[in-house]
Amino acid sequence: MIKVAIVGGSGYTGGELIRILINHPKVEITAITSRKNRNTPIHKIHPHLRGLKLKFTNLKSESIDANIVFTATPHGASMKIVPKLLETGHKVIDLSGDYRFRDYSIYEKWYGLNHEAPLNAVYGLPEIYREEIKKSNLIANPGCFPTGGILATLPLSKEKIVDRVILDSKTGVSGGGIKPSESFHFPNISENVNPYKITTHRHMAEIQQELTEFHDVKVSFTPHLVPVIRGILTTSHSFKINDDLNLSCEELHQLYEKEYSNEPFVKVLEVGEIPRLSSVRGSNYAHIGGFEIDETGRIVIISAIDNLVKGASGQAIHNMNLMCGFKETESINNFGLHP
Amino acid sequence: MIKVAIVGGSGYTGGELIRILINHPKVEITAITSRKNRNTPIHKIHPHLRGLKLKFTNLKSESIDANIVFTATPHGASMKIVPKLLETGHKVIDLSGDYRFRDYSIYEKWYGLNHEAPLNAVYGLPEIYREEIKKSNLIANPGCFPTGGILATLPLSKEKIVDRVILDSKTGVSGGGIKPSESFHFPNISENVNPYKITTHRHMAEIQQELTEFHDVKVSFTPHLVPVIRGILTTSHSFKINDDLNLSCEELHQLYEKEYSNEPFVKVLEVGEIPRLSSVRGSNYAHIGGFEIDETGRIVIISAIDNLVKGASGQAIHNMNLMCGFKETESINNFGLHP
Amino acid sequence: MIKVAIVGGSGYTGGELIRILINHPKVEITAITSRKNRNTPIHKIHPHLRGLKLKFTNLKSESIDANIVFTATPHGASMKIVPKLLETGHKVIDLSGDYRFRDYSIYEKWYGLNHEAPLNAVYGLPEIYREEIKKSNLIANPGCFPTGGILATLPLSKEKIVDRVILDSKTGVSGGGIKPSESFHFPNISENVNPYKITTHRHMAEIQQELTEFHDVKVSFTPHLVPVIRGILTTSHSFKINDDLNLSCEELHQLYEKEYSNEPFVKVLEVGEIPRLSSVRGSNYAHIGGFEIDETGRIVIISAIDNLVKGASGQAIHNMNLMCGFKETESINNFGLHP
Amino acid sequence: MIKVAIVGGSGYTGGELIRILINHPKVEITAITSRKNRNTPIHKIHPHLRGLKLKFTNLKSESIDANIVFTATPHGASMKIVPKLLETGHKVIDLSGDYRFRDYSIYEKWYGLNHEAPLNAVYGLPEIYREEIKKSNLIANPGCFPTGGILATLPLSKEKIVDRVILDSKTGVSGGGIKPSESFHFPNISENVNPYKITTHRHMAEIQQELTEFHDVKVSFTPHLVPVIRGILTTSHSFKINDDLNLSCEELHQLYEKEYSNEPFVKVLEVGEIPRLSSVRGSNYAHIGGFEIDETGRIVIISAIDNLVKGASGQAIHNMNLMCGFKETESINNFGLHP
Repeated sequence: MIKVAIVGGSGYTGGELIRILINHPKVEITAITSRKNRNTPIHKIHPHLRGLKLKFTNLKSESIDANIVFTATPHGASMKIVPKLLETGHKVIDLSGDYRFRDYSIYEKWYGLNHEAPLNAVYGLPEIYREEIKKSNLIANPGCFPTGGILATLPLSKEKIVDRVILDSKTGVSGGGIKPSESFHFPNISENVNPYKITTHRHMAEIQQELTEFHDVKVSFTPHLVPVIRGILTTSHSFKINDDLNLSCEELHQLYEKEYSNEPFVKVLEVGEIPRLSSVRGSNYAHIGGFEIDETGRIVIISAIDNLVKGASGQAIHNMNLMCGFKETESINNFGLHP
Repeated sequence: MIKVAIVGGSGYTGGELIRILINHPKVEITAITSRKNRNTPIHKIHPHLRGLKLKFTNLKSESIDANIVFTATPHGASMKIVPKLLETGHKVIDLSGDYRFRDYSIYEKWYGLNHEAPLNAVYGLPEIYREEIKKSNLIANPGCFPTGGILATLPLSKEKIVDRVILDSKTGVSGGGIKPSESFHFPNISENVNPYKITTHRHMAEIQQELTEFHDVKVSFTPHLVPVIRGILTTSHSFKINDDLNLSCEELHQLYEKEYSNEPFVKVLEVGEIPRLSSVRGSNYAHIGGFEIDETGRIVIISAIDNLVKGASGQAIHNMNLMCGFKETESINNFGLHP
Repeated sequence: MIKVAIVGGSGYTGGELIRILINHPKVEITAITSRKNRNTPIHKIHPHLRGLKLKFTNLKSESIDANIVFTATPHGASMKIVPKLLETGHKVIDLSGDYRFRDYSIYEKWYGLNHEAPLNAVYGLPEIYREEIKKSNLIANPGCFPTGGILATLPLSKEKIVDRVILDSKTGVSGGGIKPSESFHFPNISENVNPYKITTHRHMAEIQQELTEFHDVKVSFTPHLVPVIRGILTTSHSFKINDDLNLSCEELHQLYEKEYSNEPFVKVLEVGEIPRLSSVRGSNYAHIGGFEIDETGRIVIISAIDNLVKGASGQAIHNMNLMCGFKETESINNFGLHP
Repeated sequence: MIKVAIVGGSGYTGGELIRILINHPKVEITAITSRKNRNTPIHKIHPHLRGLKLKFTNLKSESIDANIVFTATPHGASMKIVPKLLETGHKVIDLSGDYRFRDYSIYEKWYGLNHEAPLNAVYGLPEIYREEIKKSNLIANPGCFPTGGILATLPLSKEKIVDRVILDSKTGVSGGGIKPSESFHFPNISENVNPYKITTHRHMAEIQQELTEFHDVKVSFTPHLVPVIRGILTTSHSFKINDDLNLSCEELHQLYEKEYSNEPFVKVLEVGEIPRLSSVRGSNYAHIGGFEIDETGRIVIISAIDNLVKGASGQAIHNMNLMCGFKETESINNFGLHP
């Protein structure tokens, strides 16, 4: 039994952390902080958690009584909290972008912030860094688009099959957070598809960082808001590195099977099968499908995840399970909610 | 550890039974039948269950090796199967309408069928019949609208506060089942609200049966399809039995608190609080709120359930837990999926 | 050719007024005001109007050069503008609630405001007040819910068939306006049904005012937000005034046929036919259907309108056509946008 | 005044043709055929057209009394009807794919059919073939995806800026037609994004045909169903033909301005502005925006159309206006329906 705390528990990822952790048999939640909701019962903000006898607190980092702290705080805020938490002996899983870059100049370029407290963190994608995660005190939990985008293209980079990928992602609106804005006003989202930051989304840099570990791949990325609450579907378009490369759809599929056969949360579909968001809704699974190659040598791979689970809170708990030596899939192995 | 089987496992309620039972620590699924999908892997029909190593079978009832059988079969089909299952020593939880009526002439009137095999069954709403359920071999699992409608109005009937209730229900489309039709064609549902069977829906008779156990209440019922996948929100309008009856909103609320305070799956909100579908999505909870009375003496109560869980498969498993002496909330006490 | 101006043109009803008026052959738009968007091209706020060479202005009322002024201003704001507009010789069609009540004490009770400038206005529902509208200088354009609710129940009141009606309305989110808020945040609306002001919505008083002109009917009203952009579907539940009243569905239907046979914008469906929002989307038509009576004597009538057209801007232009002696249906007789 | 007929009027494009033509001052509809709905009033199939006093007929082609015939018939059916219509003196605008290819072997490859009656037709995209359309007797009305895809990329091809384009399209469900199926079942579409025919959609060949008229561009195309009724948003990803090509976003934008400045139905947005479906919903406009270039030399252009109007029936009427010498924008110049 370990103690865990959630710093910044009033957003959607905070809500998901609570929803999942509350059923975890090895975990006791000792604090859920929210400056502006101090003393408010949790279910006033997260209405699905009615019945839970917990309130938000406003603890200072150093007073938090926990083995593991999840920081579900915004970019820029995490860097002010994480160092103190580490100093006071906590292990930290940070859900912001503050610790995802190994080269902090890339962070500063894409986030437009000076990084006040650079630290060595492990990028918390278990499919790449499982062993490092187990030994780390600071996990940078991956972004939602990078999770789906990297999983969809990792074998292409590892096998040096392509040198350019275009990731066209379609995301549910919950990725934009709990705070209302014109962009998320129902009449602006429903019956619409809204591309945004079409060449400038910072998650591009995160995907680039991970794919180039294996091969010099140029990443292009365009996200679109679709009228969906949860889920990211990413369509990866890429071209065979040269026209002479012989590669059948079946061979392509086998590379993915090989890569992910031991991964508990990545399901590789058959050639021609397409993932759907409802298959992974509310679950920590990533489904990967497509595996088609057209006459022009274009390779199409599709991935589907729940942005709040595999793309955020579920993956964070996966990281916690690894760090604490728990069963890797504990409390995050439920199936999705279809229909 | 008990053995359970699902007869008719290819529909939405079948899928939900599997999704929940697969995590139940006291249960082993021994068979999932589907005549037309024999030998098909489960996940070809229920794509969220990918990873499950099970196939549909086409067993005869008498060959089913199980302590409990869930019959997720259509009206009219259950009555042909249930008697044989009982004769061969199975306990049965029937999700169709075939065994919900204590007076079979009402069944025949509303379903337009001769009932070939009337039997004594217990109406499987634990909030009314918990003790009877524990001892029964045949449970008639309630309809989705009746579950939400009865829970919203039970105290009004018990306390003889009203003698007429109008239930205006708004249901997600999954209540109509997995089979496509013009009514469920996306362009006909999206951006629309579709009332149907506005004075003739058979669930009216089921609600009537249960409420009149306590008081002579006339039930009016109109269902509406809304562009939502899961969930039923029921707005109950009723009028105080006479104008002189003194009843404040707080007193009204207390009647509900009293009725449901020990119920694990009914959450009574505060006066003026309104339930939302996302609070119960994917969960077995019913939320009840509103508790307002207007100047004309109209009482407004709102209930929200997930039609496939509390309105079908979750409630069926609740019944199983009761019949088998398991912890009542085992495997169905997860919170809803909000947002 | 007349000159028209729109005061408060940056909201949804303002956008609809422009969209329709721009094609009206007898009308020239001389000003569209918006204090906060002064000098902004119209299409920056109303993106569908790209191509229109018009900008918002910030004129004082008295400087407006127009025969007819539409005030698409909020409650409380209209009462400060309308008197000046009338004094300076304009005819006014007010889309707010400020002039809808003949008894201003009812306005003050339900709107919680002192009325600074009570005036004689005509309630702009052409189906009741066509002749008065033609002669008036000040039209109070009806609310969206009242338009659908009154049309659904007018014959019941006129014929003294019922003495109580329950209106359970389901509205699209555009009725809440262009301004984002937590209530209209996509993840809170999608996959949800949100009842609100379940016994206290001010439109109740407006419906009450009109129905009691004919008979002493008590009105109960509960609105619900549904995940739809446009449209209001109202389900009217009422009970025959006494059990002995002989009334078949066909006779009920005939009362509606008689009432509306000459109305260009009210379509009476057949007995058992149900209106749908897409049939009236973007149009000025109201469809009325249902006409069923159940065993308990409950009468069910359903109406569907587009809240922004028949429920607001289209009806305002209908009023303008009547006031100016134009063809009554000019520029508002297009069919709805289905699917 | 000309006479027009619609062959195959019971689908969505048939409904749109009627909705628009009914207001066209130079047109009289003389026949709307539907074999299976013979003698059925139009509004039983197209509920928004209630009030229209027309019925479906089942005329033979040769008996149709019309100057222009719209064939809104399926692929394979048009080729059996069109030759007879032409022989009997009708001008034909065919909405199927049967006459869109100048090289019939491409048709046969992608449609899997033998073409029984190849004829010389003009590809009915006015932005390319305006003059040819005016003189033709047979127009092949473009597909919905090709309309949006070609308009988004035409200047790139004409100016030889790219030699490869990837079109990632997101389409509303109405593009799939009026007939229900598992793919369009509400619970399968809502809260989902469904890529389909990810490398094999036949509209790819149509886009390829048109773009290669100007430059040897390889087209890749993947369509996705999104939970939207109407509209296609196409994201065009392409790469500058060589890294040395100097091209700013502003220069890119100017190429589009130049191309479309005289086009009545193409609106070129500013650099960085993104089209939205609601801006064009129900209208014949195409909005084109984006015009960004990222660090890898990727050019992103976004187009938005209403698939049933600019992508089908509205464009067909545009073609009719050109063929008949009417004002080009007659009856199709209304603005979109936002919100």
